[in-house]
This record gives sequence, structure tokens and C-alpha cells, in this order.
Amino acid sequence: MIENLNGIGQRVRASFDQQALMTLIGAQLVSVSRGAVDIEISFRNDLTQHNGVLHAGVITSVLDSACGYAALSMMPEGSDVVSVEFKVNLMRPADGDAFMAEGRVLKAGRTLTVARGDAYAISTHGRTLVATMLATMMRLNPG
Amino acid sequence: MIENLNGIGQRVRASFDQQALMTLIGAQLVSVSRGAVDIEISFRNDLTQHNGVLHAGVITSVLDSACGYAALSMMPEGSDVVSVEFKVNLMRPADGDAFMAEGRVLKAGRTLTVARGDAYAISTHGRTLVATMLATMMRLNPG
Amino acid sequence: MIENLNGIGQRVRASFDQQALMTLIGAQLVSVSRGAVDIEISFRNDLTQHNGVLHAGVITSVLDSACGYAALSMMPEGSDVVSVEFKVNLMRPADGDAFMAEGRVLKAGRTLTVARGDAYAISTHGRTLVATMLATMMRLNPG
Amino acid sequence: MIENLNGIGQRVRASFDQQALMTLIGAQLVSVSRGAVDIEISFRNDLTQHNGVLHAGVITSVLDSACGYAALSMMPEGSDVVSVEFKVNLMRPADGDAFMAEGRVLKAGRTLTVARGDAYAISTHGRTLVATMLATMMRLNPG
Repeated sequence: MIENLNGIGQRVRASFDQQALMTLIGAQLVSVSRGAVDIEISFRNDLTQHNGVLHAGVITSVLDSACGYAALSMMPEGSDVVSVEFKVNLMRPADGDAFMAEGRVLKAGRTLTVARGDAYAISTHGRTLVATMLATMMRLNPG
Repeated sequence: MIENLNGIGQRVRASFDQQALMTLIGAQLVSVSRGAVDIEISFRNDLTQHNGVLHAGVITSVLDSACGYAALSMMPEGSDVVSVEFKVNLMRPADGDAFMAEGRVLKAGRTLTVARGDAYAISTHGRTLVATMLATMMRLNPG
Repeated sequence: MIENLNGIGQRVRASFDQQALMTLIGAQLVSVSRGAVDIEISFRNDLTQHNGVLHAGVITSVLDSACGYAALSMMPEGSDVVSVEFKVNLMRPADGDAFMAEGRVLKAGRTLTVARGDAYAISTHGRTLVATMLATMMRLNPG
Repeated sequence: MIENLNGIGQRVRASFDQQALMTLIGAQLVSVSRGAVDIEISFRNDLTQHNGVLHAGVITSVLDSACGYAALSMMPEGSDVVSVEFKVNLMRPADGDAFMAEGRVLKAGRTLTVARGDAYAISTHGRTLVATMLATMMRLNPG
């Protein structure tokens, strides 16, 4: 199974590395397993919204990628993934030194996959849930 | 009323200019009136996702700011706004030279405001609806 | 085209008539055209929530059917439709004598269709937007 | 604490019993604790949609009530609750003899509470997750 997990990790990493936005905002792929992908991002002043915390759009970007790659990790080789839709609840200000977005597959289907993503702020105070996403991802067949 | 609209425009611009993320991604505030805010962004290679189009998180970022400022534009002076939640449907690939995010208030309340945001891709082929947001914004009282 | 519209209307009606819930809550299919379906429901005491207005779930039920049938009306003959997901914002108390749910297709795709639904309360005071839905519908191929 | 839990249970039950829709569709309040409410409903032919399974609106109705009462259970005495918005993903056909909607509070705030609701189909085959809700609830102060 390690073989297989490695294969999944390589496919996800190859696609993640093509997401130029992840480089721009400094997001890092930290963990990939079947149906579960974690992405981390550090606080930076140029990623903030008017009140000084991380922009909701940045939190959404990493949650979207985490959910999308969690979905991709359960699709057959050669598949590609796109986001159909997502909903995000911003529960607390995204106030922390770093943030972890954890994408988890709830239901993997042939065409559609439903995933949940939780974003945690990490600081010296600990780990706080700041946002949660519920997303629908679609498998695209290879060209 | 021009006085008033100018006042609204200034309040929105002052807050928008504090959103460092908007500068990072090159988003421009192009229009503000009561309950309606438009934000434009140009295509850039460093804003893309794996398939070469604008990352869904970038589209969401400008839609979120457009909806939030549309909401703020209808709140009493001295108010601040935060996003409670939003949902985005990504209807077509965000493929274009530029993108316009149009935030419109559907219902302004004392505490909560509901807004809709539509994102259009603009190219030589015209203007295509690529994503739509339905969002809940909350008024914060001044400190 | 009348022929065609009638065909669409008949397909939608045939499916609507199989939705036993619509009979239970007294919902009526009032209008069908390509990409647009309206469903009406009257206030009844047995459809209320704790505060005496129509239960959010009833409003959602008619919005879901209106959006689903708006989607079906644009699919090839022999198709069936299921709801993938929907989001509803309840903007005002569903207080009225009757309610109209208007489902409209935003984007019809081969597999997925995005629809918006608006619910209006109708009373002697006029017509008030009480809720809005943003939904994803999926086409199922015939068995 | 039992005293307190009983108090919560009584407040939730009193409000639930005023939801006439719950009686119409045969929904039962089965469990109430701080931040967690379960509601059960049996399959009935008059609650179905066109394909013979429970209508998505019925699943949504019980999820909405479960999430709303989970939120109410954490609010100060004398509070009332209304749904601001919810999003539901319908992951599998709601095919079963009975269904359990489990509302759980993710974040309780002074004004807004975020809750998640999971709906399970129960049959001789076991318990299957058929739908999940992500909802925002608002506290209303007593009249």
C-alpha cells in the first residue's frame, strides 16, 4: 500500500506544483493520503484583509486546494479534478502565525466527490478552528 | 445624494486599500454605489490553478470583497464588515484576460446583509459569467 | 416551439405529479418554460415552524423542486434529475398568504446544471423576496 | 448538570412541539444535550420525491430543525432561534426505513451559531450517511 500511497502523493504533488497561486501565497503541501490532504500557509502581511487578519479568500484558496486534492487522491489515475462549488463558514478571525487546511473526502463518487475542509489557526495559544468548507468536486476524464 | 455617494465611495476605498491581498493579486476597485461594488482583476500567470485558469480562490477573493463592500456601502457610517459565510458555484473555467466581480446587496439588515456576487470573464469573445456567490455579511459596530 | 414547450411542460408535470411531498404540502406547479419553473404554495398552519411562519424546510422543498425542474426542462428527453446540493438564505420571515418559488437555470451543462431559486411571500401588502437558493442539479441518464 | 440538561431539553421540546411541520411529517425529537440534537423520521410514501426516495426538502427540514435546536440548546434562557442560511449536500439517495438527523454545534457565538447536521438512512443494511448540512443560526432576543 505504501507504493500506492506514494503514487497518490506524487500525482497530487505534481498537480499542486502547477498551482502558481499556491507559490504566490506561500502554501505548502504537507500531507497526502487517500481522501485526506493537508496544506499549510504562514501568516504574511500581504495576505491580509482590512482588519489585519488573513483574507477570507486566502483561507478559501487553501481549503479549496485541500478539498480538491483530497478528492483527486481517490480518483483513478489519469483523472483531473475541478471544483463545482463550495461553501465556507468563517467562524473566527483567521488570527495566527500559521494555518492548516485539512481536506477530507466525505463521499467519493464516480463523477462527483463531496469533501469537507477545516482550517485551523496555529499560534502559541494552540490550534483553533477558524473556518470550515463543504465542497463538491468533479472528476474530469483525461484529455 | 452625490455627497453621500462620495462618502460611501471614500469609506469603501479606505477599507479596500487596507486589504493587502487585493494589492498582491492586482485587484482594482472600479465602482461603488449604494449596495453595488465592482472589482476587476487581470489574468496573471501567478494566480492560476493546475489547469492554467485563475484559481477558484482568486475568483472567490474578489467576489468576497465585492460582496462585503456592497454590504458595507449600506451600513451606517463607522460600521465595519466581516464575512459570515459564502457559497460559490464555479460554472465555467475562469478563462479570460480580465475578470469583473460584481457584488450586489439582496437584503440589508441591521446586523446581517445578504449579497450576491457574479464574476465575469472578459475577453475578445465578450463577457461570460464564470462564477456566482451567495454570501452573508455581518456588521460590526465601531470599537 | 409551442409543441416543444408543451413537451417540456408534460415531462415536468409527469415528474412533479410523482413527488408525493408536493401533494402533502399542497404545492402547485404553475408555470414551466425552458429553464424556468414556478411552484406555488399556500400558507397552512400545519406547515409552520415554532414562530408561526412557514418552516424553512417547506420553503426549501418548493425551491428545490422549482430549481430541479427548471434544470430538467433543459435536459434531453428521457433524462432524470437529482439535487446534488443547494444553499438557501432565509432573508425575511416567510410570512404571507401564499408563496411563489421561481427556479431559473443559470448554466445548463451536459452533466451538471446550476440554478437559482427565489421565493416570494404574497400578501395584500404585495410580493416580498423571503429566500433565495443557489443549487447544483445533476442529470441522470435513463435506466 | 442533569437539572440543567433537563432544562435545555424542556426548552427545545417546547419549541419543537410548536413546529407543526414536524408533526405533519412525523418527525420525532429523540435526543437533546448541550450543542447536540437528534431528530428521527420514518419513511412514508407521502414524503417522497419523483424517484421514490424521501424528498430532499424533507431531509433538509429535519436537518434544519436539528441544527437550529442544537444552536438553541447553547443559547441563554429566553432566547429564540431562526435559520440564517444552510447548505446541504445530498450524497446518496435517501433510501431507508428511517432517517436520523444529527445537529451539532461547531461554534456558538453571542449572535450567530454555526452548526453541522448529518442525516443517516437506517435500514437492515445498517446506517448510511445520506446528506450533510452546514448552517448558520441566529439568536433572537426575547420579545
